[in-house]
Amino acid sequence: MDKIKIKRALISVSDKTGIEEFAQILTSMGCEIISTGGTKKVLEEAGVEVIDISKVTGNPEAFGGRMNTISFQIESALLYDREKDADEAEKLNIKPIDMVICNLYPFGRVKEDGADLDTLVENIDIGGPTMLRAGAKNYKYVTVITDPYDYQKVEDELAENDDSISLDTRFYLMRKVYNHTADYDALIASTMDETAGELTPRFSFNQAQELRYGENSHQSAFFLREKNAKDSLYDMEVLHGKELSFNNIVDMYGAIESVRDLNKNGVAVIKHTNPCGLCEGPDQRKAFELAWAGDNVSAFGSVIAFNSALGLETVKFLNLDAENKMERKFVEVIIAPDFSEEALQYLYQHKNLRVVKFDPARLQPAVDVKILFNTALWQTVDNKLLDKVEFVTEKSGEVSEDLARFGLIAVRQLKSNAIVVVRKIGDYNQLLGMGCGQPNRVNSTQLALKKCYDNLGAEFNGSDDEKQKYFDKEMGITVLVSDAFFPFADNIDFCNEYGIKTILQPGGSMRDKSVTKRCDELGIAMAFTTVRHFKH
Amino acid sequence: MDKIKIKRALISVSDKTGIEEFAQILTSMGCEIISTGGTKKVLEEAGVEVIDISKVTGNPEAFGGRMNTISFQIESALLYDREKDADEAEKLNIKPIDMVICNLYPFGRVKEDGADLDTLVENIDIGGPTMLRAGAKNYKYVTVITDPYDYQKVEDELAENDDSISLDTRFYLMRKVYNHTADYDALIASTMDETAGELTPRFSFNQAQELRYGENSHQSAFFLREKNAKDSLYDMEVLHGKELSFNNIVDMYGAIESVRDLNKNGVAVIKHTNPCGLCEGPDQRKAFELAWAGDNVSAFGSVIAFNSALGLETVKFLNLDAENKMERKFVEVIIAPDFSEEALQYLYQHKNLRVVKFDPARLQPAVDVKILFNTALWQTVDNKLLDKVEFVTEKSGEVSEDLARFGLIAVRQLKSNAIVVVRKIGDYNQLLGMGCGQPNRVNSTQLALKKCYDNLGAEFNGSDDEKQKYFDKEMGITVLVSDAFFPFADNIDFCNEYGIKTILQPGGSMRDKSVTKRCDELGIAMAFTTVRHFKH
Repeated sequence: MDKIKIKRALISVSDKTGIEEFAQILTSMGCEIISTGGTKKVLEEAGVEVIDISKVTGNPEAFGGRMNTISFQIESALLYDREKDADEAEKLNIKPIDMVICNLYPFGRVKEDGADLDTLVENIDIGGPTMLRAGAKNYKYVTVITDPYDYQKVEDELAENDDSISLDTRFYLMRKVYNHTADYDALIASTMDETAGELTPRFSFNQAQELRYGENSHQSAFFLREKNAKDSLYDMEVLHGKELSFNNIVDMYGAIESVRDLNKNGVAVIKHTNPCGLCEGPDQRKAFELAWAGDNVSAFGSVIAFNSALGLETVKFLNLDAENKMERKFVEVIIAPDFSEEALQYLYQHKNLRVVKFDPARLQPAVDVKILFNTALWQTVDNKLLDKVEFVTEKSGEVSEDLARFGLIAVRQLKSNAIVVVRKIGDYNQLLGMGCGQPNRVNSTQLALKKCYDNLGAEFNGSDDEKQKYFDKEMGITVLVSDAFFPFADNIDFCNEYGIKTILQPGGSMRDKSVTKRCDELGIAMAFTTVRHFKH
Repeated sequence: MDKIKIKRALISVSDKTGIEEFAQILTSMGCEIISTGGTKKVLEEAGVEVIDISKVTGNPEAFGGRMNTISFQIESALLYDREKDADEAEKLNIKPIDMVICNLYPFGRVKEDGADLDTLVENIDIGGPTMLRAGAKNYKYVTVITDPYDYQKVEDELAENDDSISLDTRFYLMRKVYNHTADYDALIASTMDETAGELTPRFSFNQAQELRYGENSHQSAFFLREKNAKDSLYDMEVLHGKELSFNNIVDMYGAIESVRDLNKNGVAVIKHTNPCGLCEGPDQRKAFELAWAGDNVSAFGSVIAFNSALGLETVKFLNLDAENKMERKFVEVIIAPDFSEEALQYLYQHKNLRVVKFDPARLQPAVDVKILFNTALWQTVDNKLLDKVEFVTEKSGEVSEDLARFGLIAVRQLKSNAIVVVRKIGDYNQLLGMGCGQPNRVNSTQLALKKCYDNLGAEFNGSDDEKQKYFDKEMGITVLVSDAFFPFADNIDFCNEYGIKTILQPGGSMRDKSVTKRCDELGIAMAFTTVRHFKH
């Protein structure tokens, strides 16, 4: 039985959006309508002829509305097999119901409104899920609508198909029902567990977008949206360019996280989730240049995020229209909260460049969840940068709060062990060098310091014998920030070798004393923040 | 009303485990029992007096069992407010039901058995969830049991509390019901979506273990088990030591992944999810020593996994009983599929050392899911090491299949960009040096090569003028493996500087030709595998 004519429908809705019009269309095609309580009243006021459900069930609406639809008569009319059970139904005087239109008490909404336990429980729908699930089980014969969004689809199909609904549509609507009742009970369960102080998180995803492949081409992959989330990275607007890859999306997340908490204009240059360039300052173009200079080799093929609307002057830095292809700066993705029309047109010159509109300020997760072989590691996000800046050495340096914040944002974003060197150039805060992802801190320290020298060498344009003096001057005004304590004083020796004068670290090692002592011997100022920023 | 006496119970169970005994206990305390269909038969055979449900509903069991419990009478008896609605109930001749014992048609089991769509749909329970949900909503008065595991708890409480159940227990059981119906409909929804070719994954977690904190001490955290998973990392046995931390668990996952696919005896030494030491070979103690030697600085404070039962000789390498504390090798966690009693006793000397029993072979995830701000990136796991080993240079080296596999397992596990240098020493495969987590490949190459020299320097004990010769000889027999293609030939120059003679990489760069040309110029053999192993 592919197509089924709709001759009798049961309507009982909590969300009454569009129900009058839809009921009128059903009536106009000769369909009988059974209804109950508030829905019946609304339909009658709209001039729709309605059979009271008690006429069908033989029962009153009872117990303050807790009982109105559940009955042998209604559920039989939804559940019986129209072929096998036809005789039995006739004997029992059960007439088939071909369509159920029902949505549930707004448990989620009253929860959001901060309802107490009694109100929450009163808003657990019992009759609705029963009708929906019964109709859906019998989808071979019954059309079940739970989402007002589907009225139009069903209306169109009725008009096209001589008042009938196809099996395909009935199966589609059946799937929606079980997804909906699953979500509904999931929210009830989590809420009640919460009340009892238990954490039983549930996640459900849909709106799947198949990706070309996963992290590597032999892995298949999907990008999915969390179902009931108000906002999601999935909702970004891809304005231009090649299809986003799995790794693009991972890096974009890192890029957006990196600039979210920066001042305007913040720019991050990301490779493998790590910022290798980061800057904030008054002029966007200049900030972009300084971010790029953080690692002008790795910046090629990177993912770049801005936290302010992107203008033409800034994107021209990419030289996309250079005749010599070698002068064009190739990047994978550019993300910004908005774009000027001219900036967009400029970026569109590059066919493959992915241009994505997403405001980093939207990214406000409360928790961070890792799924590892049928477990979850659930944690609140790392959103506390520091307790204080307390100098623990004889020399007490000067670290502007502003530069400390910037350095901590940078180091927090890097995979541990992480070290950054940041500096102030005029009104700009710049990441001058970083080291990350190393099994021991010395490696990261060395990587960061070497990168600083590379970058200073690139920006220096004097004579060779003035070079070291320039390095010393510039390194002397930087701050080196560590994501966790220094386990040994050897790190301090490397810092000294490269002319570092100020170090910020959380402290907390059992060898803190030997580390600060070494700083004192070398005339380095070191401050503790007490807040660690590990990221695996 | 805290305590409620159980005078009338409704029993309708698909899983009949323990139901006879439980019903007998109820009867013995004077409780009336209403039942239906197969359950009624089982109870009567066990000598339990049962009221047929049709006596209560006035309806027959109809439509091949699709309709037997759903009725105005039963659901009213479960749902009405015993205080507010008492008069109305009496007028309608509704007698309260104080307890529902019900579990659902085994949709999950028939799915596992490979049932077709019709059989699946027939196994969607409608009456069961209705009773359960109705009783649970009215938990202030009704006790609802859906898990046979809870019979004992309820029995004990009835015996202690004069045939009554407390509000606390009723609320606990109510939460179980909505968790159960949510899981039940979630499985139906995902299964039906799958049938339609749609991916709508759902995850639900419980058995929460609160951790001291998350990645850092200002983050709160939980370790959770996926609810219906057959196996899970959560099920590991922690035999000894301090409480596991969030970062321990993350690293343990990396450690277990690292050794899972190694030959016996495989050992991994992990820092921040990255293996800094890795070895496999005939003798476990020797393999451990060679793994440790991969980075004998970072190995301190690491997480270590073995893929074979751990013996005393092996763990003695840690020198936990050395009088000089500096000689003791401190590690955070040791994981193995099993332990000899002597090995355990030896490890227990260290009060804090976490000793965990988990067989790496159990870790067999099919998919890998990342949750990023209300999205999921879902992908199949990276479980294909290589297509082939095809030499693309004039010189075609010799790479044993065995060493290639080992090198690829090592590089696959490291955060990109990743480079490893592996060698064969007798029957052992050893990771000699690695570089990872860098924004460009040159950095990783340099880190790996430098580490090789450090390690060779540590193992060399001849005269200074023979040192370079030793380095050249040893580097000459290693294989350098890259997780992705070399974008530029500069990497090859560094390899040459350190005496590398054989390189394995996936290939696929638009500059492959210039890279192989450089190999030819330097007399290096390079093979392509075609399979990339990015890991972010």
